[in-house]
Amino acid sequence: MLELSLLSINHVTVLQQWSLPELIDGLVRHGVPGISVWREKLHEVGVDEAARRIRDSGLAVSGLCSAGMITSPSPAEAAAGADDVRRALDEAAALGARCLVFVAGGIDARDKDLRGARARALDRLADLVPHARAVGVPIGLEPLHPMICARRSVLSTVGLANDWCDALDAGDGVGIVVDTYAVWWDPDLERQIKRAGRRICAFHVNDWLEDTQDLRLDRGMMGDGVIDIPAIRRMVEEAGYAGQREVEVFSARDWWTRDPDEVIRIVKERYQTAV
Amino acid sequence: MLELSLLSINHVTVLQQWSLPELIDGLVRHGVPGISVWREKLHEVGVDEAARRIRDSGLAVSGLCSAGMITSPSPAEAAAGADDVRRALDEAAALGARCLVFVAGGIDARDKDLRGARARALDRLADLVPHARAVGVPIGLEPLHPMICARRSVLSTVGLANDWCDALDAGDGVGIVVDTYAVWWDPDLERQIKRAGRRICAFHVNDWLEDTQDLRLDRGMMGDGVIDIPAIRRMVEEAGYAGQREVEVFSARDWWTRDPDEVIRIVKERYQTAV
Repeated sequence: MLELSLLSINHVTVLQQWSLPELIDGLVRHGVPGISVWREKLHEVGVDEAARRIRDSGLAVSGLCSAGMITSPSPAEAAAGADDVRRALDEAAALGARCLVFVAGGIDARDKDLRGARARALDRLADLVPHARAVGVPIGLEPLHPMICARRSVLSTVGLANDWCDALDAGDGVGIVVDTYAVWWDPDLERQIKRAGRRICAFHVNDWLEDTQDLRLDRGMMGDGVIDIPAIRRMVEEAGYAGQREVEVFSARDWWTRDPDEVIRIVKERYQTAV
Repeated sequence: MLELSLLSINHVTVLQQWSLPELIDGLVRHGVPGISVWREKLHEVGVDEAARRIRDSGLAVSGLCSAGMITSPSPAEAAAGADDVRRALDEAAALGARCLVFVAGGIDARDKDLRGARARALDRLADLVPHARAVGVPIGLEPLHPMICARRSVLSTVGLANDWCDALDAGDGVGIVVDTYAVWWDPDLERQIKRAGRRICAFHVNDWLEDTQDLRLDRGMMGDGVIDIPAIRRMVEEAGYAGQREVEVFSARDWWTRDPDEVIRIVKERYQTAV
């Protein structure tokens, strides 16, 4: 049974129910010590106001979600994505976030060039690393599930994230975000988490439902699916990660429809019994 | 522009429109030289009758789909799956099919043990190989997309299929089925297809739609999505595969709702322009 001290809850888990101030108050009320901030919700409040409220709350910020989308073959589109990453890094620094969650971007149907999209993402990341180092927030490379490779992320495995880290050689300017939902199926997972080692800058937990009905918005609460979450947690911890464990459940048909206080209560229970 | 001589069409592409006799007649009418048979449709007709009709038609049978589902932690359930694989191998031999498409099976929510499920599948495959060799039909290990790992197949990458082939050391008793939809996202694809080499016993083509809406029944027609299919075809051919190219489109919202003669016409066009 895990202590709650490293629990963090990502805003997306109650995205439809609470504003950022409501989430901050709710987490404090329920004795949850950590938060992960969703940028759309951050921008509703403003960064200064949000930073002040979070500082006053004492919540530890496990991450800021998300920026990236820099794979486009259009230089103008990619530059807009890169500018947004720089803004997001500044925001993450203002909030004291442990990392900025980076989502690479997908494939462009205009060229269908997966290898090219991956190469462009890596090139553009190299340009962004100095800003990350300057503000002291790592760009957290988050491999996303292969089923959203086309739309959101050509970074599909922890192995590829390790390859990118090797190529960038950026020290603490980049890290790797391990999300159970995205990586649980990977036959090479244990080896690649070991290889990632101290690069791991965030650990996201949630579950894969057997009857998953949507490619993005149907994640399960820990314990409701088929992932052996404790096994992945142990891999991450054996690799040297000792940070927060962030609960991140996108769930349009279930958790977004519930009373948010009930959601937080159940997250706390499941964190103790199924993580 | 590809010649039609290696084109095969999987029954699933017009699953809702045609019986097996209707498909056989339709393919002959459209000058399509190859067929892949769906077992539910085969059983409606009976194996002897189907084998006679296919022999008379001159169609080349690129595969029989599918059998497997041998990952269960329940020995009785796994034995039932294995018996079905043996029956399917006999059917494939009767039809002169190039391979039996093998679908491993998923994770059991009762134990959430992915590593165990993979180990069980491999052990049980070893027991099935003698039957495959006896009837002269390879068990075609088909890696399926990680998004159906929980429900249908713990065999998620060509790399893992290669590992299983190495472990089985079964010569022509097993092969690997490369399906563009299942593998296109894999950063390690080129290397693993090269490693597969002559193990490749079938090549399935179809496309990944940008706005994919279902985890199983929303595949796209070649050319309508983001996969660089010719690039994957070249990898497979450079690895030594010179067999049929099988079109396999599961599409509940689009192709299953169309006139089947229109579907076959469009498959032929797209095979020539987008494969």
